[in-house]
Amino acid sequence: MAAERLVVVGGDAAGMSAASQARRLKGPGELEIVAFERGHFSSYSACGIPYWVGGQVEERDELIARTPAEHRERDIDLRMRTEVTEIDVAGGRVRSRDLESGHEDWTGYDKLVIATGARPVRPPLPGIDAPGVYGVQTLDDGQALLDGLASARGRRAVVVGAGYIGVEMAEALLNRGFEVTVVNRGEQPMATLDPDMGALVGSALDGLGITTVNGTAVTAVLTGPDGRVRAVAAGEREFPADVVVLGLGVEPETGLARAAGLPLGVYGGLLTDLSLRVRGHDGIWAGGDCVEVLDLVSGRERHVPLGTHANKHGQIIGANAGGGYGTFPGVVGTAVSKVCDLEIARTGLREKDAAAVGLRYVTVTVESTSRAGYYPGAAVMTVKMLAERRSGRLLGTQIVGREGAAKRVDIAAVALTAGMTVEAMTALDLGYAPPFSPVWDPVLIAARKAVAAVRAAG
Amino acid sequence: MAAERLVVVGGDAAGMSAASQARRLKGPGELEIVAFERGHFSSYSACGIPYWVGGQVEERDELIARTPAEHRERDIDLRMRTEVTEIDVAGGRVRSRDLESGHEDWTGYDKLVIATGARPVRPPLPGIDAPGVYGVQTLDDGQALLDGLASARGRRAVVVGAGYIGVEMAEALLNRGFEVTVVNRGEQPMATLDPDMGALVGSALDGLGITTVNGTAVTAVLTGPDGRVRAVAAGEREFPADVVVLGLGVEPETGLARAAGLPLGVYGGLLTDLSLRVRGHDGIWAGGDCVEVLDLVSGRERHVPLGTHANKHGQIIGANAGGGYGTFPGVVGTAVSKVCDLEIARTGLREKDAAAVGLRYVTVTVESTSRAGYYPGAAVMTVKMLAERRSGRLLGTQIVGREGAAKRVDIAAVALTAGMTVEAMTALDLGYAPPFSPVWDPVLIAARKAVAAVRAAG
Repeated sequence: MAAERLVVVGGDAAGMSAASQARRLKGPGELEIVAFERGHFSSYSACGIPYWVGGQVEERDELIARTPAEHRERDIDLRMRTEVTEIDVAGGRVRSRDLESGHEDWTGYDKLVIATGARPVRPPLPGIDAPGVYGVQTLDDGQALLDGLASARGRRAVVVGAGYIGVEMAEALLNRGFEVTVVNRGEQPMATLDPDMGALVGSALDGLGITTVNGTAVTAVLTGPDGRVRAVAAGEREFPADVVVLGLGVEPETGLARAAGLPLGVYGGLLTDLSLRVRGHDGIWAGGDCVEVLDLVSGRERHVPLGTHANKHGQIIGANAGGGYGTFPGVVGTAVSKVCDLEIARTGLREKDAAAVGLRYVTVTVESTSRAGYYPGAAVMTVKMLAERRSGRLLGTQIVGREGAAKRVDIAAVALTAGMTVEAMTALDLGYAPPFSPVWDPVLIAARKAVAAVRAAG
Repeated sequence: MAAERLVVVGGDAAGMSAASQARRLKGPGELEIVAFERGHFSSYSACGIPYWVGGQVEERDELIARTPAEHRERDIDLRMRTEVTEIDVAGGRVRSRDLESGHEDWTGYDKLVIATGARPVRPPLPGIDAPGVYGVQTLDDGQALLDGLASARGRRAVVVGAGYIGVEMAEALLNRGFEVTVVNRGEQPMATLDPDMGALVGSALDGLGITTVNGTAVTAVLTGPDGRVRAVAAGEREFPADVVVLGLGVEPETGLARAAGLPLGVYGGLLTDLSLRVRGHDGIWAGGDCVEVLDLVSGRERHVPLGTHANKHGQIIGANAGGGYGTFPGVVGTAVSKVCDLEIARTGLREKDAAAVGLRYVTVTVESTSRAGYYPGAAVMTVKMLAERRSGRLLGTQIVGREGAAKRVDIAAVALTAGMTVEAMTALDLGYAPPFSPVWDPVLIAARKAVAAVRAAG
């Protein structure tokens, strides 16, 4: 019997995890694996790019988990710089183009994995493609930005967008000695938080010497006589800039899937079932930043581009494509980030998410500390908690603070997954010792206050 | 109608939290509250004593959450240096003795809270009461030890016991410039961990310059001609000592309760129901270090003396005694501690706990890092996980590492509370960003490996 062929489109986290897991389950005599990647790198940590740009990570190669050669040693036929240009679902084949030679080819598949990732949002503004304007999605982007920083005429940087990529890049540029202005369309930074929590991030950014301009949409990138960026126009103002970094988030890269007639959701991501099989398409799986995932709290699909999900997806797809079994139940929407020593975390629903799906809720916000108040290094931490009215079910948690704030959100992430009420949370047996927590962990304090709010709301 | 009287025996965390919570619910016209404390201090953090002794906390008073005067301002009649010497359950009264004047008195109660705490284990060894031998249970103990360190003839300290108090005191003495030897009866330090994880702590103690002598029981404290301690005898050896610190743990202080005929468990702690009412005794509640608590994983009662439980107990007892309602469902056995930069955490059952209640289990141990491997400061972290055979239910987790290790155990603590399987845990949506976690959190890696172990065990 001839080996089946598994074709993987996209050679980063989801795609190559899937290929590797399938290979663990089936040897090359049973399953041929061909993977296509249009870029120069495979299996790298895009999440690490801000720290490479900022200098905490010295070498680009540290971000590469597994090189193309390492994949090939595992009998995965990984074809770099080769772009898939068409998926022929009826014919069970993909068309690819070698980006060096221009050579085109069709490759048949028995099983297909779509892991085409996401692309940075790049609004069609005048000047957006000018030299000196950088995205930070790929290692190639990161290298271009580093080169740009080295050759910049001055030290003024404008970051467009104040989401997690924006604030991480603000830190990176600050580390590189730039004067940083973040121009943000929203009323507060970090739209992934409620505005009141975003405001805390805004104050902290001020304290770090990062200028944040809120409620201001960029209208154009202005260039000088040499064609290079010289400023960003936003509202009625101009912000001088020697470099501009776009941190406007990403959207699913699903042009191929759309052209192939595969089902997409409202955010443009591929829709799958719990086994990550593309809905209605046996033998085709999709994962990573190109899919929408089920939000377990709201019951809706969302687009949550995160390396940790992409890696899980890859494992599960590889298990299923390799004849095993795995499912991805969904997410609760956990995200953590930092800017300098400020830690920012969220999980579950924001107020507007809860309202959008018809949930009535109470909110509480508490200020506590990361350690016992008397222990050196105890730092203020603000915890906001949303709970459903009547049932008291936890709906979401947001934390802004210093050391120890970010990963504390995992407590709430697990509680959300388990469908706990805030009442049940007040009894959680969390780790306590003075160097690690006040005797009432800040999350417990928030839960207690939330219980009272649920009762008061009736 | 005359006010009811609530009498509280013991003026530390559980007792005074209960008094305060009851006072919030009922004013002095409805409820008179009398609390007795035999010591000099109320509502203090005993858990903070090692850090005060070690110098991280400068002033004793920083450890005091609320002074007697502050309690009295809230209409709580707190009588310091007054020891309850008898509980007359049939008569509904307690006998007390003023430790300054020797005056004795009977006080009737309508409702009673027993919060007598725990006392350090002090084996009846020759010399154990000699000058230079210190316990570290109360603020008075801590002050005596600090005075002893200041006046010690030399800089050699022996800590008896390598549990969490022992290792925390080893750090404190190291900070004070002492040469520290820990003499430990067990084969490894930290008997609250499995031996293989305890061994990691042992290696780390070595690395910190703390000498650990395992498998060796202390047989006597040896004194010099002046009657002061000069060495500790253990096994065939003598360990020279200018100060000796006892860190052998604590046992419930339930002499009064025993004399009153109240029900005690196998560890000598008071037995209560879920509302913390002493079993079979309406109107009498008990909480804090003097009670046994239900271990939700094993289904057995355990003695878990921790400030965080004592505070929760106090809140719940105060609610019930004040006419409200609260329950304490039990614990999962979470504990965290540190020695210098080593973090130690556990939750759930050790191997021997699981075996003792008839559970069959698999174990896995993984080594990972606290942050993405390429991010500065990424430190090795070892995670051990126990899961039940067949069902795959999580039974316990132990973590030893550096920064970020201790509070990670909260993920497992919540999962245990929710009765999650290790399979369900592999899908947990935990916070991920390179400064905070590898793309697979160490707990997720352990869960994945545990799933495989459960399948392999059949």
